[in-house]
Amino acid sequence: MSAPVASLSPNSGLLRDLPTPCLVVDGEALRRNIEGMAATAREAGVALRPHAKTHKSPEIAKLQMRAGAVGIACATVTEAEELARAGLPGLLLTSPIMGASKFTRIAGLNRQHGLTVVVDHAAQVEALCAAVQPGDRRLNVAVDVDVGQARTGVADIAAGVALARTIAQQPALAFAGIQGFAGHAQHLIDPAERRAAGERAAGVLRALAKALTEASLAPALITGSGTGTHRLDAASIYNELQVGSYVFMDADYARIADEHGEALTFAPSLFVLASVVSVNRPGQVTVDAGTKALATNGPPPCMIIGAPSGARYAFAGDEHGIIFIPRDERTPELGARVLIGATHCDPTVNLHASLHVVAGGELTQWPIVGRYGD
Amino acid sequence: MSAPVASLSPNSGLLRDLPTPCLVVDGEALRRNIEGMAATAREAGVALRPHAKTHKSPEIAKLQMRAGAVGIACATVTEAEELARAGLPGLLLTSPIMGASKFTRIAGLNRQHGLTVVVDHAAQVEALCAAVQPGDRRLNVAVDVDVGQARTGVADIAAGVALARTIAQQPALAFAGIQGFAGHAQHLIDPAERRAAGERAAGVLRALAKALTEASLAPALITGSGTGTHRLDAASIYNELQVGSYVFMDADYARIADEHGEALTFAPSLFVLASVVSVNRPGQVTVDAGTKALATNGPPPCMIIGAPSGARYAFAGDEHGIIFIPRDERTPELGARVLIGATHCDPTVNLHASLHVVAGGELTQWPIVGRYGD
Repeated sequence: MSAPVASLSPNSGLLRDLPTPCLVVDGEALRRNIEGMAATAREAGVALRPHAKTHKSPEIAKLQMRAGAVGIACATVTEAEELARAGLPGLLLTSPIMGASKFTRIAGLNRQHGLTVVVDHAAQVEALCAAVQPGDRRLNVAVDVDVGQARTGVADIAAGVALARTIAQQPALAFAGIQGFAGHAQHLIDPAERRAAGERAAGVLRALAKALTEASLAPALITGSGTGTHRLDAASIYNELQVGSYVFMDADYARIADEHGEALTFAPSLFVLASVVSVNRPGQVTVDAGTKALATNGPPPCMIIGAPSGARYAFAGDEHGIIFIPRDERTPELGARVLIGATHCDPTVNLHASLHVVAGGELTQWPIVGRYGD
Repeated sequence: MSAPVASLSPNSGLLRDLPTPCLVVDGEALRRNIEGMAATAREAGVALRPHAKTHKSPEIAKLQMRAGAVGIACATVTEAEELARAGLPGLLLTSPIMGASKFTRIAGLNRQHGLTVVVDHAAQVEALCAAVQPGDRRLNVAVDVDVGQARTGVADIAAGVALARTIAQQPALAFAGIQGFAGHAQHLIDPAERRAAGERAAGVLRALAKALTEASLAPALITGSGTGTHRLDAASIYNELQVGSYVFMDADYARIADEHGEALTFAPSLFVLASVVSVNRPGQVTVDAGTKALATNGPPPCMIIGAPSGARYAFAGDEHGIIFIPRDERTPELGARVLIGATHCDPTVNLHASLHVVAGGELTQWPIVGRYGD
């Protein structure tokens, strides 16, 4: 695993006065990750529309655009609104949605900024047509396809063609193409299994694209993918990648690569800064970062900067974690700080209001936008 | 399990226009829970200082005060600041903390509002003394005691007496008493095991109180407890209960009571309102509430209002969940809404910016305060 840059020291001047717990980003690793994925897409000749659900950060989205992205993918209407407000172009809402107020907001976003959305049911097409106002530009609408995750998307080729035709028949809408996200494939440990699931997903999109072309509805956009399958997908039917996690590099992805000897292209860049608040028990210290600071639905955090090698973190409640120190190793002192590598980045980001980014010897604070109810 | 009030209908007028996902509180159940716990404490002759970490809501804290609480417990300095700003009295910070800026903020809170904090190390006493300014009122400081959770707190009786003496010797501080939280005991399924763990915890506090009294440091305050052991603790050494979860009644607590035939005093009152966004697969629908809307570190949600009996929820990513519908039961329609009972309330609340409270045929929105970085 690539080591974080030496400048990222939890007890250094830059981080010493931050209230804990808080999110810290290794800005150099972030920049390398963004450039690395941009280069991969460029070399493969596919467009990159990175997913903002990972970072919820207009600043990171701007870095991704500067590196050559064609736009930014969003999971919610609020994320799209926040990114539009920050001036990000080429927004794609990747989740089919329902709800009268949301259709109105989508139409408003399209009116002011332009937008592509996905649907998986004719009722959504009807609601979008009702929301678009006379004089608005056409709203780009793609068909979301179930490529094996069984979550959203049309369930078969015939339904996909029918829905595309319905979209294309609406004067208020423009048929944009197709989307398939093989979420179930991204974290498969076995590379052969991952490849097989990715290929099955691509096969569904390939068959639908063929059927659409035969129906004179050739899809301009074939979008999807994720960090786990992006290399496979870049060489496949997709002409656009919606990768997200690579900016922070989930430890789970790192584990997948490590255990099977694949080159790890990206480096972990997201950490939670925590303070040691209790040292009364031998072999362990308690820190002020628990389940409200670090997502619990990933592997346990395994990289702890500021603790000896072999130290391991365990959740100990909403506001506490325990770091177990290997025998004969030095125990961090009361008040010392540690940087705990996030193992599931998207939901960890979602627990905080801002990112503290360290790069070039400077610390900057970037807001996290579009959390529920914000 | 007590049924939620009939007025809490996910597709009714009151909830129909709320953007999903969002938190909805059954205000009638909330009120009954608050009154029930207040009555239990009153009858047992113990004080009640409910824990705000559960709800992060000044409005709920005010209801708890009106029902007879002596003050409010907080897990973080920010929670204490937010509650002080809202005028809540009797604040107790239940976590030992470290960090220069936090000691300064504690001293400021004490100056303006009065405050009790806990410590488990002499270094914290020293830092508090340095932060309190000439002319400030004395800061109340209690000793946090490890009663079996192995997380924070002094590890033995001698250390507790020594730390209490150190506090009592400081002109800037007042020794307030002792705190022990048996977090490990709260969710034990077997009532006999839970009782045994609770009694061991109380035994530690009893021994420390005796030793302190012999050292002329009799603790005025013996605080702790939680929803899982509150009945046992109310009849034990504690003179104050810091119960939190009872306001929303975690499904995990409900499960404990159900499986062993104990009367369930409290009713679930916290729900996530979600919309059905995809209906393309038989036997299941997809809703727009996933791991960013519902905490993942409890049991899977089991109560779904608006879905047929026997329906079950499964996480399907950050923004999605799948509700599996029993065979031959009616499937919720595209765009329909459901209310999903939260199974781990504290971290679920922490994922949202506000509570939507339904009571007496009215809907009110209460802010959630003090999330990390807010």
